Amino acid sequence: MSKVVTFNRTGGPEVLEIVDVQVPAPGAGEVQIRVHAIGLNRAEIMYRNGQYVIEPEFPARLGYEAAGVVEAVGEHVESVAKGDVVSVIPSFMFSEYGMYGELVNAPAHAVVKHPGNLSFEQAAASWMMYVTAYGALVEYGNLQADQNVIIRAASSSVGLAAIQIANMLGAKPIALTRTSEKRDLLLKAGAAAVIATAEQDMVAEINQATQGEGAHIVFDPVGGPDAAKLMQTMAPQGIYFQYGALDSRDMVVPVFEILGKHLTLRGYELFEITTDAEKMARAKSFVTEGLRSGKLKPVIDKTFTLDDIADAHRYMEANGQTGKIIVTVE
Amino acid sequence: MSKVVTFNRTGGPEVLEIVDVQVPAPGAGEVQIRVHAIGLNRAEIMYRNGQYVIEPEFPARLGYEAAGVVEAVGEHVESVAKGDVVSVIPSFMFSEYGMYGELVNAPAHAVVKHPGNLSFEQAAASWMMYVTAYGALVEYGNLQADQNVIIRAASSSVGLAAIQIANMLGAKPIALTRTSEKRDLLLKAGAAAVIATAEQDMVAEINQATQGEGAHIVFDPVGGPDAAKLMQTMAPQGIYFQYGALDSRDMVVPVFEILGKHLTLRGYELFEITTDAEKMARAKSFVTEGLRSGKLKPVIDKTFTLDDIADAHRYMEANGQTGKIIVTVE
Repeated sequence: MSKVVTFNRTGGPEVLEIVDVQVPAPGAGEVQIRVHAIGLNRAEIMYRNGQYVIEPEFPARLGYEAAGVVEAVGEHVESVAKGDVVSVIPSFMFSEYGMYGELVNAPAHAVVKHPGNLSFEQAAASWMMYVTAYGALVEYGNLQADQNVIIRAASSSVGLAAIQIANMLGAKPIALTRTSEKRDLLLKAGAAAVIATAEQDMVAEINQATQGEGAHIVFDPVGGPDAAKLMQTMAPQGIYFQYGALDSRDMVVPVFEILGKHLTLRGYELFEITTDAEKMARAKSFVTEGLRSGKLKPVIDKTFTLDDIADAHRYMEANGQTGKIIVTVE
Repeated sequence: MSKVVTFNRTGGPEVLEIVDVQVPAPGAGEVQIRVHAIGLNRAEIMYRNGQYVIEPEFPARLGYEAAGVVEAVGEHVESVAKGDVVSVIPSFMFSEYGMYGELVNAPAHAVVKHPGNLSFEQAAASWMMYVTAYGALVEYGNLQADQNVIIRAASSSVGLAAIQIANMLGAKPIALTRTSEKRDLLLKAGAAAVIATAEQDMVAEINQATQGEGAHIVFDPVGGPDAAKLMQTMAPQGIYFQYGALDSRDMVVPVFEILGKHLTLRGYELFEITTDAEKMARAKSFVTEGLRSGKLKPVIDKTFTLDDIADAHRYMEANGQTGKIIVTVE
């Protein structure tokens, strides 16, 4: 029997239960993983709350990110074998698989042998954040050396990943954060400039940070009316990636900005990369190389144990973290 | 001496003057054209009014579109020769060249030998409207057979060009027009469906016209708050091209629409195509083939003579036309 996390109704962290189950043998195309570390993300909170793109069917499982050791493989799996140290790239729905558990099955296409210099915690932290940032900045945004990229909500795990990827490419990451509280931390994390949007004149500061050149890419999980100000600071042909809706209000787009500068505003989600075999292969290769070289180094905020999964969710919902929240599994 | 149109202050159509000038011999890289027909467009009205992207210096010239016969060529011009029947693709600024005249110089890169089945009027009408629509629908939008394209302000010359290009590709052009007045005309022009936005439920009608599949491309010179409704009707991965600002208010973008469907909103201008040699070559080839085959057939609304240029501007500003306004030159 193995412990897994499940829930039987939507709601707060208290709905999460740890139960003992008999995990079935991996089916064709599946890999069974003995989990050592799990990465948490906001989609899991939304799913637990009943606010995600799909509705849970009970008893529901959840979890997109994990690292561990292959326990067994199903038919037609040749990419990994028993004993391999692996991690999981989010590329399935919670209705199919959930990584919150001691022993889990995952689809082989989502399982990758990560570089050996990573701990299980680091490996579990890596894929969601780096592939999300990679997809916008590199796959779609074609970010070049010396270009300026504005990273909103920069202290989130994906924000920090974007800072590292921008630096890896020789681009200039400009971090936006609400208050100056995290300024030093963001500079240390590699931001070329940090702008506290609740305390400073955002547009003037961005113009100064880019020496009037403007931002070639904006990478934003917030949205809302401030998008209009950010577009003012963009360079011609710039691309604005909206990858979340933390502000659910309509975005405001000044037509002369997008027309005169040929700007692009694009809604973007990780699954655009992870459900496309070619894009996924390029993402794996880029992120693996970055992790191996040490240019990409996942920032872990805090670790919890599996028994404390509800506390881990509470901690994430309090929005105080800088980097990734990890759950370790004995 | 040759007649040309000039103006010495910004203002209404009355500022336009016809004067006799000695047109200088074409310089290096220039082609001198004996003009037979001129196409009018809105940029010329904006420039005359002092509302264009560049300010006029007086005495100012204007005109982006013309067709005629090569009178002489300057040094290093090998693409055309004296006696060739040619037309002009807008790819310069009014501060450099103006096509409103009996005899004009134009940069060689903008001069093209158009198919012989076109009249001078048709040739003068073609490039602005077809290259504008081509750039969005084909070069950037990659419109495919059986896809749905929503064409706003469909009775404009560019709108009609977009309908023809969509049909040429086997796609489905859905024409938006304010009232039902131009319905029959737009159906005759090739629209698969016509929606009178001031009289019908736009969203419901688009959903019906696309059989719930949604629009893969929106091609819009208006903008404004209705953009939000149009985004509701778009298919996943759809692209919304904003190519004008007839409504100067901010556009409204519902964040869950662009995020959930990975939509792209892109400001687009003709000059993105005509100032890029490779894109321009592809545009010339596509449009020439369409004109030669008869699949693209410019719609001319009305013709004026050069002496009546002010009346021609007045007519354009009254917004009653369907298709291109042409000025013929004796």
